[in-house]
Amino acid sequence: MDKIEHIGIAVANLAESNALFEKLLGSPAYKEETVESEGVRTSFFKTGPNKIELLEGTRPDSPISKFIAKKGPGIHHIAFAVTDIEAHIARLQKEGFRVLNETPKKGADGKKVAFLHPKDSNGVLVELCEDIAP
Amino acid sequence: MDKIEHIGIAVANLAESNALFEKLLGSPAYKEETVESEGVRTSFFKTGPNKIELLEGTRPDSPISKFIAKKGPGIHHIAFAVTDIEAHIARLQKEGFRVLNETPKKGADGKKVAFLHPKDSNGVLVELCEDIAP
Repeated sequence: MDKIEHIGIAVANLAESNALFEKLLGSPAYKEETVESEGVRTSFFKTGPNKIELLEGTRPDSPISKFIAKKGPGIHHIAFAVTDIEAHIARLQKEGFRVLNETPKKGADGKKVAFLHPKDSNGVLVELCEDIAP
Repeated sequence: MDKIEHIGIAVANLAESNALFEKLLGSPAYKEETVESEGVRTSFFKTGPNKIELLEGTRPDSPISKFIAKKGPGIHHIAFAVTDIEAHIARLQKEGFRVLNETPKKGADGKKVAFLHPKDSNGVLVELCEDIAP
């Protein structure tokens, strides 16, 4: 794991939370992106080498909408930057972690991503993400 | 906010979770520290420029023990590194954020720290932390 790439935060209203996190972090979101396959609208903030990703569900059955219905807004996942996502998936499976998608899928922000089962990670939803080569 | 200094994760059993996060992150905790005033035993892992802090309550009335009793183990807070914590506290109060301790207190890992009220931060418990000059 090279660093914390970003922290994903589930929000009920992206526009309102963008204004809030601009005040908190002292600078505005530098981009917004919708990932229709995941039913999610996202925005990104920079904090030095790390990012904060806000996530708003675009439909009631999206994972983010379900998370908010169950737990309310708050921290949703930690994403670690990795340089060889397939190797990390193989290593973690060998260590007993369940990977929710064995084949990395396309996420926001030009990444391929995979998620670990939070039950195996102390209740923490862990994302691995690697830049897709241009 | 200079970077994500660490992510704090509430755990029920520090020894077991240390073993788990060693497998997840690929390297062991580099230190453990008890902060008796907060009723917490902590361990720290490095991931590049960032850290993961595991927190176990040392008594039933500690904030971490109460968090786990209510929500189970999982992500507890995000800590941002800052260079002038008093200036950030003043700025954030002016922006309408409630600061749980206006006077920074001594936290783990040689830091002075302050927490924001999660109700003002989209359900996220935000810590500001600054290195105490040696």
